[in-house]
Amino acid sequence: MDYIKTVTIQKVNNQAMESMEDTVVVEYPFTIFINGEEFITLLCSPSGLEYLAVGFLVSEGIIKSKKNIEKVVLDEEKGHAYIDLISKTDFAEKLSGKRTVTTGCGKGTIFYNVLDSLGTHSIKSDMKVKAESILNLSSLLNQNSQLFKETGGVHSCALCSEDEIVMFHEDVGRHNALDKIVGEAFLKEISLEDKILITSGRISSEMIIKTAKRKIPILVSRSAPTDLSVGIAKELDLTLIGFARAKRMNIYHGEDRILIP
Amino acid sequence: MDYIKTVTIQKVNNQAMESMEDTVVVEYPFTIFINGEEFITLLCSPSGLEYLAVGFLVSEGIIKSKKNIEKVVLDEEKGHAYIDLISKTDFAEKLSGKRTVTTGCGKGTIFYNVLDSLGTHSIKSDMKVKAESILNLSSLLNQNSQLFKETGGVHSCALCSEDEIVMFHEDVGRHNALDKIVGEAFLKEISLEDKILITSGRISSEMIIKTAKRKIPILVSRSAPTDLSVGIAKELDLTLIGFARAKRMNIYHGEDRILIP
Repeated sequence: MDYIKTVTIQKVNNQAMESMEDTVVVEYPFTIFINGEEFITLLCSPSGLEYLAVGFLVSEGIIKSKKNIEKVVLDEEKGHAYIDLISKTDFAEKLSGKRTVTTGCGKGTIFYNVLDSLGTHSIKSDMKVKAESILNLSSLLNQNSQLFKETGGVHSCALCSEDEIVMFHEDVGRHNALDKIVGEAFLKEISLEDKILITSGRISSEMIIKTAKRKIPILVSRSAPTDLSVGIAKELDLTLIGFARAKRMNIYHGEDRILIP
Repeated sequence: MDYIKTVTIQKVNNQAMESMEDTVVVEYPFTIFINGEEFITLLCSPSGLEYLAVGFLVSEGIIKSKKNIEKVVLDEEKGHAYIDLISKTDFAEKLSGKRTVTTGCGKGTIFYNVLDSLGTHSIKSDMKVKAESILNLSSLLNQNSQLFKETGGVHSCALCSEDEIVMFHEDVGRHNALDKIVGEAFLKEISLEDKILITSGRISSEMIIKTAKRKIPILVSRSAPTDLSVGIAKELDLTLIGFARAKRMNIYHGEDRILIP
């Protein structure tokens, strides 16, 4: 499917207006059905849709084990994902939970109360990474963001080892990009406990909670965190880094995992 | 309440690490109760909370008339807003509706289907504004964004006449900033049909639908729109402008409302 679309715009420049072609990013309504029941509609970039559907449900705590997924069927024409789960218990539980709408680009609804999840997933990791590697990975993320260069309308997210980007996704929604990573790693059974997650977007509480739930020890943003996400990083001992650009970065918590020569 | 918080960070610069104080933006959990029943928790910046609570419910279509608001009580300590509505019919209807989670920074849950609302609020306005005025207002928005300058962690939104900013709000959530504008205008009964809305953030379908629902004829972003928002602008004949910076801007629809000397 197309991630971008060409539109005719009127470009205004120094008091002159001219008609020209320009590209905009596609925003794709994507409805997830669980066991035949309509669950939610996400607005996303139409890439990695199976990963997004599964990753969203994993992040929400609705899918806990890969064995619980009977099948995932996509209908890209209709913008539908049909997910059949063997056990529906978690699903039912979740639906009765509280609804919290967060500051997240991309997705808001989380069926647990953000603050309730504090302290539930403390990170146990003695992973150490060179500060230089973090900055290299952050530049790599930026270089890979083709869709952003074309449209300025997306966020990117990458799962990395110290040396390279292992997985990369872009989406109009910052949370969708993260959920695509979560879903791909979940389906491919790739360990996250020795990885670094890098996002182009701001770090709100929901972003860091999703990261912590996957036991990723190091979360890096090219942008800013909120005070709540810094508090959660301290609470869960997750390494939180912001403004990782060029030769600089701010470590908000967990500098013991970052090596300076 | 404080919008920013001072934290101790480790600043890495050219392979050197030093401890220093830095400011991060506050992300504040804010729970709205309707007629005593917990409705939703937003994560927001703790400013204009009454406007946010009312604006959110207006944007969601839960509050249609000011007369329907019996009272709004804030408990900033607890992060609660208690809103009593005289008629609960709309509220009940809405709860049975579909849930769509959007690409919006700040807020996702909308209880109508995005696509269903196409064509329902076509803009009838012969408002004309100088391109130069739009660019001036966009720079003004940027200059006013103190919290962004301090933290890099917020979006700003302004309601403007051709000559000046009438109303300005910042929030960790792009949609919260818009809902604060919606709520303040709703409570102060300020007409929106002759105004310009300017946002620092990207324009997703939900942003433009909220703008159209308030009958604001011109929506301006310093950033990018999605193809869905461009389609909605055409469908509803709403003037949509993106990348309004310095002396340039892109008009995606409705250039007839923009005057070039």
